[in-house]
Amino acid sequence: MRPTWKNVYNWGDTEKPIDKTIEHHIEFLKKALHIEGLSQDHSLNANAHTEVRLAKRSRISRQQLKDLIRIVGSDNVQIDDFSRAKHAAGKYYGDIVRLRMQKEILPPDAVIYPREESDIVKLIRYCNTKHIAVVPWGAGSSVTRALEATKGGVALDLTRHYNAVLKLNAENSTVTVEAGILGPALEKYLNDKGYTCGHFPQSFEFSTVGGWLAARGAGQASTGYGRIEDIVVGVRAVTPAGIIDAGNYPAASVGGDIRHFIMGSEGTLGVITEVTLRIRKYNEANARMQSFMFPSFEAAVETMRLMMQSQVMPPHFFRISDPEETENALGMKGKDKGMTGALLNMLGFKKGGRSILYAIFEGEKAQTKLGAKTLNALARKNKGRSLGTYATRKWLEQRYSSAYMRDPMMDAGIRIDTLETAVHYDRLIELWRAVREYIKRDGETICLTHISHTYETGANLYFIFASPMQGKNELAQFEKFHKGIIDTFLAHGGTISHHHGVGRLGARLLPKQHSAATLVAWRALKKALDPKGIMNPGALIF
Amino acid sequence: MRPTWKNVYNWGDTEKPIDKTIEHHIEFLKKALHIEGLSQDHSLNANAHTEVRLAKRSRISRQQLKDLIRIVGSDNVQIDDFSRAKHAAGKYYGDIVRLRMQKEILPPDAVIYPREESDIVKLIRYCNTKHIAVVPWGAGSSVTRALEATKGGVALDLTRHYNAVLKLNAENSTVTVEAGILGPALEKYLNDKGYTCGHFPQSFEFSTVGGWLAARGAGQASTGYGRIEDIVVGVRAVTPAGIIDAGNYPAASVGGDIRHFIMGSEGTLGVITEVTLRIRKYNEANARMQSFMFPSFEAAVETMRLMMQSQVMPPHFFRISDPEETENALGMKGKDKGMTGALLNMLGFKKGGRSILYAIFEGEKAQTKLGAKTLNALARKNKGRSLGTYATRKWLEQRYSSAYMRDPMMDAGIRIDTLETAVHYDRLIELWRAVREYIKRDGETICLTHISHTYETGANLYFIFASPMQGKNELAQFEKFHKGIIDTFLAHGGTISHHHGVGRLGARLLPKQHSAATLVAWRALKKALDPKGIMNPGALIF
Repeated sequence: MRPTWKNVYNWGDTEKPIDKTIEHHIEFLKKALHIEGLSQDHSLNANAHTEVRLAKRSRISRQQLKDLIRIVGSDNVQIDDFSRAKHAAGKYYGDIVRLRMQKEILPPDAVIYPREESDIVKLIRYCNTKHIAVVPWGAGSSVTRALEATKGGVALDLTRHYNAVLKLNAENSTVTVEAGILGPALEKYLNDKGYTCGHFPQSFEFSTVGGWLAARGAGQASTGYGRIEDIVVGVRAVTPAGIIDAGNYPAASVGGDIRHFIMGSEGTLGVITEVTLRIRKYNEANARMQSFMFPSFEAAVETMRLMMQSQVMPPHFFRISDPEETENALGMKGKDKGMTGALLNMLGFKKGGRSILYAIFEGEKAQTKLGAKTLNALARKNKGRSLGTYATRKWLEQRYSSAYMRDPMMDAGIRIDTLETAVHYDRLIELWRAVREYIKRDGETICLTHISHTYETGANLYFIFASPMQGKNELAQFEKFHKGIIDTFLAHGGTISHHHGVGRLGARLLPKQHSAATLVAWRALKKALDPKGIMNPGALIF
Repeated sequence: MRPTWKNVYNWGDTEKPIDKTIEHHIEFLKKALHIEGLSQDHSLNANAHTEVRLAKRSRISRQQLKDLIRIVGSDNVQIDDFSRAKHAAGKYYGDIVRLRMQKEILPPDAVIYPREESDIVKLIRYCNTKHIAVVPWGAGSSVTRALEATKGGVALDLTRHYNAVLKLNAENSTVTVEAGILGPALEKYLNDKGYTCGHFPQSFEFSTVGGWLAARGAGQASTGYGRIEDIVVGVRAVTPAGIIDAGNYPAASVGGDIRHFIMGSEGTLGVITEVTLRIRKYNEANARMQSFMFPSFEAAVETMRLMMQSQVMPPHFFRISDPEETENALGMKGKDKGMTGALLNMLGFKKGGRSILYAIFEGEKAQTKLGAKTLNALARKNKGRSLGTYATRKWLEQRYSSAYMRDPMMDAGIRIDTLETAVHYDRLIELWRAVREYIKRDGETICLTHISHTYETGANLYFIFASPMQGKNELAQFEKFHKGIIDTFLAHGGTISHHHGVGRLGARLLPKQHSAATLVAWRALKKALDPKGIMNPGALIF
């Protein structure tokens, strides 16, 4: 069977039937949004099963094709429509809408699969000479429009060949990998040897180490293991101006730290190739899970803050579901009504206020025990009641599943996307309220919010919003709505992104995030490494 | 009394009599180095008590002086020889030699004391227009020649007026300060409110928050509190291209992180003005001190590594004295001979092998207890024997005193300086051996080494070396020797600096530390922020 448009945009394996829980969740949301049956305009679904044909033909010349094949071999240069469509966009909601509508799709002219760093060096040198744009690709789960071929050119996909573990150094607790390795492959390699990398973004299954760095990501266990920038020890990158090797030291005071411009560069400076990460011993049996119900979001956040500032080692996973997300979780499991519902109300955990806090402590047994005991005491003091391990276990079971929900939900006429920010504790509640208020003004809208990344000075806020689709006007409507959310972040002391990055979506907002002088310095650095502007033009800083 | 040259170069208060312990230590070292009485060439001490007169006159013009006074007021512009000499060098051994010999001194033409950020903005704008070089000054304890006025110009000294605490935010656990505040003033302010900053460099008494950032420093408790880059939340800097405000968030994914070029910039990009630091609650009563004797340096390092990789919260202070430093400590207290010496030998802790490990756990009581218990078990497993709190208490008593030793030691004809690096665990012992071997080739030399900053993947190595001075040839001899040590770091996987920085001493080595492409990018960033090259010309990257 020829690949269809659904094969292009679908999250994960298109042929796999939808999970029962997901089906149940969609029915639940449809009811909540008062969507009866398939009453929405389903034009966005019309081309799901048609064969992929791109309006834009590859503009690569015969000579260029020959040259590229000479570098990586004929198997590793593809110019067919499906390969190009697959490398035309990431997984932002707007991307999926554009792919479903076959509108404003910006595919590369060719997809190239380098086999080793020397291939990448040759490719970048060649593209620089010929002024060919290059978009470095990991597994394509960007949600910021970081992966489009604004100016055509080539998509450099590292996942096919450039994905080996190069060295595990037990004495130093480090692992060195090729940047195209996927999360599960790395984690399996490490787990088999008794280690973990500790980086579990929502996109874990479909993201690479290179992508983690490029997007400056943070995983679900970042409270304990750190953000990617805390995990990275060494990094190499191939830029048009040459190879950057940031060295490999526990720490140094040797001027500026280029790693902090490579991380977060989103492909605009070069191709991240070799990465050395700190690893940690992992023993599942030592982990301690906890969950608590709080009478209010504020009480849950206060408990989290006190734990983070307690000077006891904090949990590795540390999350709070706000009242609406809590209600959604309870409702999904039918626990909002009946005995459980009545009991919760009786105990003072009223609907609209009650919030669940989740925690997992990992590491040495005595340490996880102390952590759990400390959190338990703080929770009690703030009127939290233990739910045992239940809620956290349930959350863990579906930790990567929500990404699988979007396609069937869109099929059912439901818009669903997410945005996230980070803010200090003193403005967290204010920001949360303001964003919810903004989102709720948009008619029939569900807004589920959680905190999933926690620090001593503040935390992130992650908003999931769902509403009925607007038919043919969906893209324009959605983008206006989306812009308003980020403006609300900025107005209340939040960043434009905590771990998704900037891409083409946030680029216009950089002057609101950074000082003019910062942008002047950054643009000069970009110009020095990529004088012809071939690296991911149009993304981030351009 | 008119200020003398001794007032220029001496560490701390010149009038204060030398501490008895220091006197004792000097006698001890003289004996070890076989220096009988004052047999050395004492010409380096000849000008100690003569009045300060500089050969180089201030080249500031009458009009410039008027203009500068208009910006900061007449009290805050000084062009007298003493003020200029005080701002002509930092505290590198070579600096002191040059000041003592009155040789190659590079004073600024004027010293300026800005009162607030708007003064600094005006000064930088003025100096940029007039092509006047600017060297930003904290308290002057640089040991890398970062503070010389290579091209004359002005020294911008922030310590006199620009040193206030602006805000303590208890909810966020942060404090915002003006960059010219000294370590003790900040720490006292915080301690009075039950907090600590946790940053205690050796230069604590004579260094500022701005200096900590500019040099990308690390304090004695960095294992627990982090290096300065882990403690900094927000930073503002005035550059010739405008003000950089890096924002104030718990974390963000918004492209490059300019803070990591501001930190470590050593005055070459601009003047660091306002800084927000993470603080922590501090309760001295909860701290747990430990010390252990190990039969070898290797066994002590192995224990340290296992603790750092144990996933139990590590100590806040974590140190090891190598065998020679251990012997020095024991000898100083007369514990190498007599009962203690005999007992140590009998127990297998032989001279030349035995090494002391020091630890202090801070924070929550149950956490410090768990840490101490864990370290105790690891130490036993690696043949360490507890010395109770003794060695650590003794070390704490003199934690800032070694800086006071250099002047009287130089008076006694002894050369003494330090160099430091960082390296992963798998090459730590190799590097330590190689550096010791190099140092010991230099005739009669003492080399005391410790580890004072520890990470999951490796640690620093801090070398203190002392030998008889070489009289009139001292400077040339020393600088050759010094260069050889850093070359040895590089040859064995070490950084050129772990926390001292680069300054003018290490600038020639930047191409050995960083990739060519990194330097291309960094120079472009420097050029963008400081197009005329007025900021600390000659230092770091130029």
